[in-house]
Amino acid sequence: MTAGNATGGNLDYLRDGRAIYERSFAIIRAEADLARFSEAEAHIVVRMIHAAGLVPLAADVAFGHGLAEAARAALQNGAPIFCDTEMVERGVTRRRLPAENPVLCTLNDPAVADLAAQQGTTRSAAAVDLWGERLAGALVVIGNAPTALFHLLGRIDAGAPRPAAIIGVPVGFVGAAESKDALAAHGAGIPYLVVRGRLGGSAIAAAAVNAIASDAL
Amino acid sequence: MTAGNATGGNLDYLRDGRAIYERSFAIIRAEADLARFSEAEAHIVVRMIHAAGLVPLAADVAFGHGLAEAARAALQNGAPIFCDTEMVERGVTRRRLPAENPVLCTLNDPAVADLAAQQGTTRSAAAVDLWGERLAGALVVIGNAPTALFHLLGRIDAGAPRPAAIIGVPVGFVGAAESKDALAAHGAGIPYLVVRGRLGGSAIAAAAVNAIASDAL
Repeated sequence: MTAGNATGGNLDYLRDGRAIYERSFAIIRAEADLARFSEAEAHIVVRMIHAAGLVPLAADVAFGHGLAEAARAALQNGAPIFCDTEMVERGVTRRRLPAENPVLCTLNDPAVADLAAQQGTTRSAAAVDLWGERLAGALVVIGNAPTALFHLLGRIDAGAPRPAAIIGVPVGFVGAAESKDALAAHGAGIPYLVVRGRLGGSAIAAAAVNAIASDAL
Repeated sequence: MTAGNATGGNLDYLRDGRAIYERSFAIIRAEADLARFSEAEAHIVVRMIHAAGLVPLAADVAFGHGLAEAARAALQNGAPIFCDTEMVERGVTRRRLPAENPVLCTLNDPAVADLAAQQGTTRSAAAVDLWGERLAGALVVIGNAPTALFHLLGRIDAGAPRPAAIIGVPVGFVGAAESKDALAAHGAGIPYLVVRGRLGGSAIAAAAVNAIASDAL
């Protein structure tokens, strides 16, 4: 740092990545109410709070049908990870994955625009159709589009292969809360993780995957 | 939808992407207090709220030194967009950009690990050094790492080229609030956008860029 600069050289800050993580997680565990979660679940919720910068997120998180164990086992077994957006796909830290799991996003497949037009739905929803038989035993991560989550549930109802687990954290103001309620209420008993209400997004989704993956190593 | 499925076929939801956007933005404008923003700023804040699912975000947003106009002009002039993470880089919608602007992230450059070790800082901070002379007139977008924002300010203090504008929305519990305060208080008068406090993240960062870009078309 040179003297006489615009910030007065007053840029003292923690530069050690591991120390930053440790202090961050300590703050989150001190502030967040995690009592209703298992230790594996709490590990995931801490990472989600870390990605969002939002301790109250914990109150909206719901796990069902053994998500933490099912998703971890799927990754260990080499399951692919299907993502609704490229942001989620990019956010998954490859070196954490226990079995070099493929991380896939079909949103920008050339077939998607026509599929969406034919079905009168969004590109995010139509992209789900391209997952095909690979959906069997996969980890599905919806971080953005409620229509993708609704569409997936409809496909499963109609006989599509059953994924191992669904991380359903679409974000927003139209359909997000309803799509997550539909996942949690879904009759097929697929392990799920949701954030109730409007909160969610690609960063929270990727953080959940990375937490599960690091637990699975 | 087939009959007799697990959700009872009860998956009525809005499927028209444009209608979903319009309804979302109408809800945000009805709920958020945007009175202190210019119209160009409000357009950006609405997109940031949309990405976060969080109306109260508006209260934490601060613009300085004409960010909206400066960032828009930079994009129209073909400025590159430097991002601290691949998630931000992936979140920038290319077809919105007015001048096929390059969108760059140097975090995974092979030189970064050694640079970080030499300087005793994070990879995110060291990656900033690779922006070099291209920083002149660029749009910088920090969506994740406080250390990247602190490091950038230190480089500018030390004589690095001056970017056209900085979107500084790192997220989290250690250094995030302080790094954004340092940007807003920085003496060089560089146009900035920050979210005060802990909130931020790659989705919010990309949304801000996309709002500015769509305004610039």
